[in-house]
Amino acid sequence: MVSVVIIGSGNVAFHLIKAFLKNDSIDLKQIYSRTIKNIESFKNETLITDNFSSIIKANIYIIAISDDAIEGFSKQLNFEDSLVVHTSGSVSINALKGTYGKGVFYPLQTFSKNHRVNFKQIPICIESNNNNHLVLLEKLASSISDNVYFIDSEQREKLHLSAVFVNNFVNHLYQIGNDICDKNNIPFEILLPLIKETAKKIVTLTPNQAQTGPAKRKDIQTINKHLNQLNTNQKEIYTILTDSIIKTYN
Amino acid sequence: MVSVVIIGSGNVAFHLIKAFLKNDSIDLKQIYSRTIKNIESFKNETLITDNFSSIIKANIYIIAISDDAIEGFSKQLNFEDSLVVHTSGSVSINALKGTYGKGVFYPLQTFSKNHRVNFKQIPICIESNNNNHLVLLEKLASSISDNVYFIDSEQREKLHLSAVFVNNFVNHLYQIGNDICDKNNIPFEILLPLIKETAKKIVTLTPNQAQTGPAKRKDIQTINKHLNQLNTNQKEIYTILTDSIIKTYN
Repeated sequence: MVSVVIIGSGNVAFHLIKAFLKNDSIDLKQIYSRTIKNIESFKNETLITDNFSSIIKANIYIIAISDDAIEGFSKQLNFEDSLVVHTSGSVSINALKGTYGKGVFYPLQTFSKNHRVNFKQIPICIESNNNNHLVLLEKLASSISDNVYFIDSEQREKLHLSAVFVNNFVNHLYQIGNDICDKNNIPFEILLPLIKETAKKIVTLTPNQAQTGPAKRKDIQTINKHLNQLNTNQKEIYTILTDSIIKTYN
Repeated sequence: MVSVVIIGSGNVAFHLIKAFLKNDSIDLKQIYSRTIKNIESFKNETLITDNFSSIIKANIYIIAISDDAIEGFSKQLNFEDSLVVHTSGSVSINALKGTYGKGVFYPLQTFSKNHRVNFKQIPICIESNNNNHLVLLEKLASSISDNVYFIDSEQREKLHLSAVFVNNFVNHLYQIGNDICDKNNIPFEILLPLIKETAKKIVTLTPNQAQTGPAKRKDIQTINKHLNQLNTNQKEIYTILTDSIIKTYN
């Protein structure tokens, strides 16, 4: 059985802990966090610690902490026969500094603590310079997900960048839609089927084929009418995205 | 039984025709289009015509043509006892010029001819200045959808504006994500579960609660790294959306 220690208590750590605890083929031996109260809810299910020197031996250490802290933390780890991976989309495998096996275990999903996810459908992007370690990581990843991809650091960086557009920025556009509805006493829920369908459409069509709307039609009258109803910030975003769509289709 | 004539052969007309043909409580008597070949596929299921003077009598005429053409077309219709509605999100009820009952029948969804939709879940926003007509429209709308809303022209305009953000602009961000993947030989499908989850998350969380990413964290190092990997157009979009998120959360 593969034994694992998870380092961290953020959203990614939290969901990985949940997934591994449910899984019989993985032995989640310990969770480490600087702030013990963040992981106290797991104390009946596995070992927890906030003391670095109490971290125990395992096959794999999963560092699920903020991007900036990965390199510094990785230097302190000292388990020569183990494999140490981080879970970041934008940090290179080379940020791991230490004398151990190195890898990346990047679940490509948006995590919030108060929203359940089905790990089976989450793509996990793995990377290692060592084939044996890659096999071990593949075993770990496929124990919780049906979608495991071998992605190197350069591709992962681009993937993470794409994810910012299709997730973070998309959610911000939802926010703007919500703001406009709120301001005009319209229930935002009216838009939910449209939002769902927009996401679903590109499973069978390319985004290019799926594009509709006044910018695609170059319908200047509607575009100007829209601009007159927006605040300065919304207007800037509307203009730049409309121009980009017009450029794409002309 | 409510009798209906549909004017138009675009995406909205196409899906409404499909929905009404399947429905036993609605009598779709005729379809009119200037271009007969666009509606020829329905010739075995109902009357079709490209001759304006052949348009027959019905309870409701649904004008599903381009926004700019609605007013001009509506002037030519001459069925005093009937109800004439358009299906546009951004055109006022007052654009209908003629001596007949007037209304709006706006299905809030993104339609592509080659992508099936389940009409039951599509919100239909209806409007009329006359209560009897509103009852008739409610009957028509609820025959094909479980989500019928009474929305006046002013609210509908705002709703349509929100829809541009959460649908048209969101799809364009999918396009950018796709472009970045293509350029780096990454299968875009890896991003589909993230895209789906992003849309699903806001059913239970507000977009504000659901926001994640480098802009939300004000992670300037990652933001700068991302900017260096983008082309001019992508960079502009990235910058403006990042600034807007930072403003929202600070």
